[in-house]
Amino acid sequence: MANCTIILDAMGGDHAPDVIVYGARQALARRRDLKLIFVGDSNRLKPLLEKAELSPANYKIVHTDQVVSMDEVPRAALQYKPRASVLLAAELLARDQGDVMLSAGNTGATILACSQKIERLPGVERSALAAVLPSMRQRPQDPGKTMMLDVGATLHCTSNQLVSFAIMGTHYFREVLGFTQPRVGLLNIGEEDTKGHQILVETNARLRRLGGIQFVGNVEGKDIMRGLAEVVVTEGYVGNIVLKSMEGLAENAIEMIRKIWQHSVFYKLGLLLLSPAIKRIKRRVDYTEYGGAPILGFKKLIFKAHGRSNEKAIGNAILVSASAVEHDLVGKISQAVEESLLPLTK
Amino acid sequence: MANCTIILDAMGGDHAPDVIVYGARQALARRRDLKLIFVGDSNRLKPLLEKAELSPANYKIVHTDQVVSMDEVPRAALQYKPRASVLLAAELLARDQGDVMLSAGNTGATILACSQKIERLPGVERSALAAVLPSMRQRPQDPGKTMMLDVGATLHCTSNQLVSFAIMGTHYFREVLGFTQPRVGLLNIGEEDTKGHQILVETNARLRRLGGIQFVGNVEGKDIMRGLAEVVVTEGYVGNIVLKSMEGLAENAIEMIRKIWQHSVFYKLGLLLLSPAIKRIKRRVDYTEYGGAPILGFKKLIFKAHGRSNEKAIGNAILVSASAVEHDLVGKISQAVEESLLPLTK
Repeated sequence: MANCTIILDAMGGDHAPDVIVYGARQALARRRDLKLIFVGDSNRLKPLLEKAELSPANYKIVHTDQVVSMDEVPRAALQYKPRASVLLAAELLARDQGDVMLSAGNTGATILACSQKIERLPGVERSALAAVLPSMRQRPQDPGKTMMLDVGATLHCTSNQLVSFAIMGTHYFREVLGFTQPRVGLLNIGEEDTKGHQILVETNARLRRLGGIQFVGNVEGKDIMRGLAEVVVTEGYVGNIVLKSMEGLAENAIEMIRKIWQHSVFYKLGLLLLSPAIKRIKRRVDYTEYGGAPILGFKKLIFKAHGRSNEKAIGNAILVSASAVEHDLVGKISQAVEESLLPLTK
Repeated sequence: MANCTIILDAMGGDHAPDVIVYGARQALARRRDLKLIFVGDSNRLKPLLEKAELSPANYKIVHTDQVVSMDEVPRAALQYKPRASVLLAAELLARDQGDVMLSAGNTGATILACSQKIERLPGVERSALAAVLPSMRQRPQDPGKTMMLDVGATLHCTSNQLVSFAIMGTHYFREVLGFTQPRVGLLNIGEEDTKGHQILVETNARLRRLGGIQFVGNVEGKDIMRGLAEVVVTEGYVGNIVLKSMEGLAENAIEMIRKIWQHSVFYKLGLLLLSPAIKRIKRRVDYTEYGGAPILGFKKLIFKAHGRSNEKAIGNAILVSASAVEHDLVGKISQAVEESLLPLTK
């Protein structure tokens, strides 16, 4: 197999370009064979890359001085910045200059840049941004992870689109997370097949008939982290709000622990005694371990890392991206869609 | 002021009728002047009420042997059980036999029974079920509580309906929770006024123009528990899934603590040292403190207590219900809708 080439939006994210370069170094320490393309300001990247002592054999730079910042409105930003790093990266990917693209920048701009530059798979009408969350293990063989999609790429979905998300999520779990029989649940307001609006009822019926995936029916909000399904399918509008609500609750809990810490010496001692367990829990829920979230539905692979990513998160995201390429995730999804979705829509 | 009369669906909830009777006793211990109507099976209620030593001056029983169980489909259940306790309770309320109704039973059946028996306020097209959640205090004067509505009564809403929810939530905070300047946020996928689908954009614009409430703009999922708004407005479909997702996450956290506890003697000691703080947090997030959630939009007051309510939760819910009656919550909401919503819709 030829060397895997990863296109990095080197200017995207709260701590770019530094964490992108140092994250790349972490990934290269584990995988010397990777090739990297840094898309960004060469005046800033060159000294950083030299300082980080990356071997010039492993990378090249594609220069641009335009970048979409985290708080810009995606559509306007891409219009006024035709050479924005995220757009150039997507263009390089479209022109087969690399196998996968990774950005920690503005999520909306990343999705939009890909929509503008890269074709979608036949049968996949809209793309989906996925999020991987920790979940309970109901059975010993369970992976302890749940993927929710979409969480913000496609706000409102037809049943055809939701069905394609179920197929894509299933294959991501199989190929990238190595869990061969992921269960698929449809996020809804109740478990009965007839719950929710018409599109949900229709999607439920279609998923029940669909081969090649393991559909367990509707799941409720409380089931997302319970580990009743590995793939939770929902429209982006709901997925985005749910994901952020849970993030908010987790932050609230951390804030409470911080306050307790300041409160008394007994509490300090208690927290110290618990610190190995707290660390273990933190590691389990830590997004830096998960290596970014895939944007699925395109003919090319795209990964989105968290805007707050540190170098470890970027390093993991690069490694996961490479693994997805090597497992031919896009090919597997494409084949599955062709076999199970296209015949139904004809 | 005449004595406040509370109509209790004595058969609704996981632990009915026992916790209803013992909860009533707790409430009467604080408020001897309350009158209660127990709607339910008198063969079971009579001995319970005698055993609990409630004074016959404080209550009467309206007998029925029909009850909607927690897992029944609401519409079908109400159709086949015309004398279900929740329907009779709603009917008594409609006929002015009491001032407020409280049920810990099947949520869907409670809302549907009220819709069938009780008129909505002029200008309020649909009812809203509210949930009160703990939130961070950003400023010392903040109440540390956030109300989200709707969480399941009206799955999809027009902007007119969402605006009415904002007004109703504001007045609930003022009259019942005693916080005079609650901030209203519209739950959305981003802060910018133009985010989300057309109805959200329109609702945002209308709330910006609306007098009598303090609108702070769109809020994201992560803001719900951050205390950026006391009243978070959303359609029931999203509100329901978000609420249950956060419940699921909280349960997951409790499960983790339980596992830690079994793990080592050091962890046990750590948790023991922290137990006063854990108790304080538990009290803050404990739904039994909040006294149930109001169902707003009707000409009469209805409260819904959690299905798992214990007697303390029921007792608090009765006291909160009485307080809402005495502050003339429905009158205040009715007036506000008349002043600010009806002119806009003409």
